[in-house]
Amino acid sequence: MPRWEPQARDRLRAAALELFLAHGYDNVTVAQITERAGLTRRTFSRYFADKRDVLFAGSEELPGAIADAVGRADPALAPFDAMLSALAEVGDLLADRVGYPAEHSAIVAASPELQERGLSKFAEVTRALGAALAQRGTDAATAALLAPVGTAIFRAALDRWARQPDGVSLADQIRATAAALAASMRPAAPAQDVT
Amino acid sequence: MPRWEPQARDRLRAAALELFLAHGYDNVTVAQITERAGLTRRTFSRYFADKRDVLFAGSEELPGAIADAVGRADPALAPFDAMLSALAEVGDLLADRVGYPAEHSAIVAASPELQERGLSKFAEVTRALGAALAQRGTDAATAALLAPVGTAIFRAALDRWARQPDGVSLADQIRATAAALAASMRPAAPAQDVT
Repeated sequence: MPRWEPQARDRLRAAALELFLAHGYDNVTVAQITERAGLTRRTFSRYFADKRDVLFAGSEELPGAIADAVGRADPALAPFDAMLSALAEVGDLLADRVGYPAEHSAIVAASPELQERGLSKFAEVTRALGAALAQRGTDAATAALLAPVGTAIFRAALDRWARQPDGVSLADQIRATAAALAASMRPAAPAQDVT
Repeated sequence: MPRWEPQARDRLRAAALELFLAHGYDNVTVAQITERAGLTRRTFSRYFADKRDVLFAGSEELPGAIADAVGRADPALAPFDAMLSALAEVGDLLADRVGYPAEHSAIVAASPELQERGLSKFAEVTRALGAALAQRGTDAATAALLAPVGTAIFRAALDRWARQPDGVSLADQIRATAAALAASMRPAAPAQDVT
């Protein structure tokens, strides 16, 4: 039986993030991570498939979690509002799981490989949002327009939150980003509504 | 000197679209296209690099054209409005060049290879929009939020226009799509502004 390693997962993650930040993600090996953490390769393998998994464990569940949340949203909500409430709900769960968001964000920004992976992850979020909206009865053209806008809001909010993780919650950042986008789309001199 | 072929380019394109629609893009060869058009491979090569080029000739200029149009937009315009006016301007140019938009759209929808290509083309549009907005003085966070929204509007408008090419112009469809998005983001019961 392997010895129980208190907080082994967190120690490995902290060691990996330190090394990725210092030397660049591409230049760090699993051996270096386990050495820095004072743990074995075998312990590493109990928690992570590979070094990428240290950064993204659980993120493959994101599109499905967002789609589920859209499906559970109050049926009385308009499509955009249902999408936004789902993104905020999943944002709260995600924020609890991402340790060190600022470091995470800096590491991804410095690696073309990880950025590429991020792009395809967000493309999946867009697909999941579009399918979940359609499932909810939103017409196909509207779902196809709203889904990438939801992803853009989610992504921009994640970036803002990662830069100030001690500020507002990720859920609030998602709502604030959506409000900022809506405000930026309002014409400078709105026509008077005379109906 | 090769003989001048009146409308050779258009004949090749029409032949290619007919064959792609009938047999699927992946199953059609350049030889079949030239045979259907009654022209030679040599004539084909004068106009197109390969069969994909028949569908997408000139589309590699799209990101640059959009970025240029953002740069030329009235400096007094807010970022979103500058982006929208640039997309509408390029939309008009593009509409003049895309023959048979409905057929084009159906062919792309039926081919995973072409859809993949479309995704990366739109990712380039997003990058170009973000860079052009930043160049114009828009702060980085706002540019990163607006650029994918601009691409989503452009893409949704293209789809709508392709389905009804004899309806409103692509430029008007872009403006109408942006207005529909803005309307869908407005809260159902807006809070009274009491300031």
